[in-house]
Amino acid sequence: MDSTQLHLPEPALRRLPWYLSYAKLALERGETTVSSTQIAKDIGVEASMVAKDLSYINVTGKTRVGYSTFTLIEVIETFLGFTETHKAFLFGVGRLGGALLQDNGLRQFGLEIIAAFDVKFELAGTNINHIPIHYIDRMNELRQQTGVDIGILTVPINQAQEVADMMIQADFKAIWNFTPIRIRVPNNIVVQNTSIYAHLAVMFNRLRMNP
Amino acid sequence: MDSTQLHLPEPALRRLPWYLSYAKLALERGETTVSSTQIAKDIGVEASMVAKDLSYINVTGKTRVGYSTFTLIEVIETFLGFTETHKAFLFGVGRLGGALLQDNGLRQFGLEIIAAFDVKFELAGTNINHIPIHYIDRMNELRQQTGVDIGILTVPINQAQEVADMMIQADFKAIWNFTPIRIRVPNNIVVQNTSIYAHLAVMFNRLRMNP
Repeated sequence: MDSTQLHLPEPALRRLPWYLSYAKLALERGETTVSSTQIAKDIGVEASMVAKDLSYINVTGKTRVGYSTFTLIEVIETFLGFTETHKAFLFGVGRLGGALLQDNGLRQFGLEIIAAFDVKFELAGTNINHIPIHYIDRMNELRQQTGVDIGILTVPINQAQEVADMMIQADFKAIWNFTPIRIRVPNNIVVQNTSIYAHLAVMFNRLRMNP
Repeated sequence: MDSTQLHLPEPALRRLPWYLSYAKLALERGETTVSSTQIAKDIGVEASMVAKDLSYINVTGKTRVGYSTFTLIEVIETFLGFTETHKAFLFGVGRLGGALLQDNGLRQFGLEIIAAFDVKFELAGTNINHIPIHYIDRMNELRQQTGVDIGILTVPINQAQEVADMMIQADFKAIWNFTPIRIRVPNNIVVQNTSIYAHLAVMFNRLRMNP
């Protein structure tokens, strides 16, 4: 299977990590096979959707037996890119940036932050969780040395576009944007927006609607 | 305006934090009014959509002038619940849980974590960022004392459902689920799923499709 050729619809893509976690738990419980019916019941989606999502990545179960738990984990992890290591730079060592530097979990999911950058002189030369922090103007030099092309954006909102522009100039391929700002980038750059505060807004709103 | 009565479609709700950030930046630059055309251009959505989203929350601009920046900030912040304080408990003081305890940004957006819980005895009695950590079995007692009804779930995946069940028993109204597991809850409980690792999967996938 050449998984790089598969174009999976985004909703299906977003469900794959659920199946992965489910399979990991099943393996812990000693279950060597899992069925789409089981997965569907526990996750709260339709069994036919589970089967369809998994067929996209060429996983097919056996009738009355289901999927091999181990194969399921392996195929999903590989497909999602969690088994490779993607190196990244982080921009903005504030509260959230610092927290992400502490999160070794990212490495398990294929992302390794190898350096962080900030405009605060006093941070340059220090490190968090063994990740060195540099003054921002060293970015281009380190980008050339390392070939890193993923940038994590955790700067204050009034610097978000400026730092994004710096990454665009330096030929980054992807920006993981944790700021609540929409950044403008050329079409060939991948932007993943992850604003946890926007999720908070959705939760508060649902709470009010659900007295 | 009684904003609690408004039912906003979720995509519109998710765009409001963008407009908010935009307006905050405009205010910093000294712009006392902003137009839907400007917002639309900078954010990369249609101007008619901006106007429609804002009309849902009863913000209307003046022809040829636009919206008052200050009013826009005030109305969106109030509507999103960022100006109130919602108290929450956090469950699972691992990497991600610890990071969220450090993130004072949450407080600016209306969420105050007042206590954290873990099953590790050695964490009980300590604190992170002045937030006390308790052994998990003190949860019910502290829930009764404080009336907290929002729980943040940052436990390992094999404990996610168990801890969610504990919250359901204790009558929590909302669970902010940071685990990559789908938890099962009754219909009257609000669940907000925020798995940053799922976003990572989407970004890796787009990177491969975008060589």
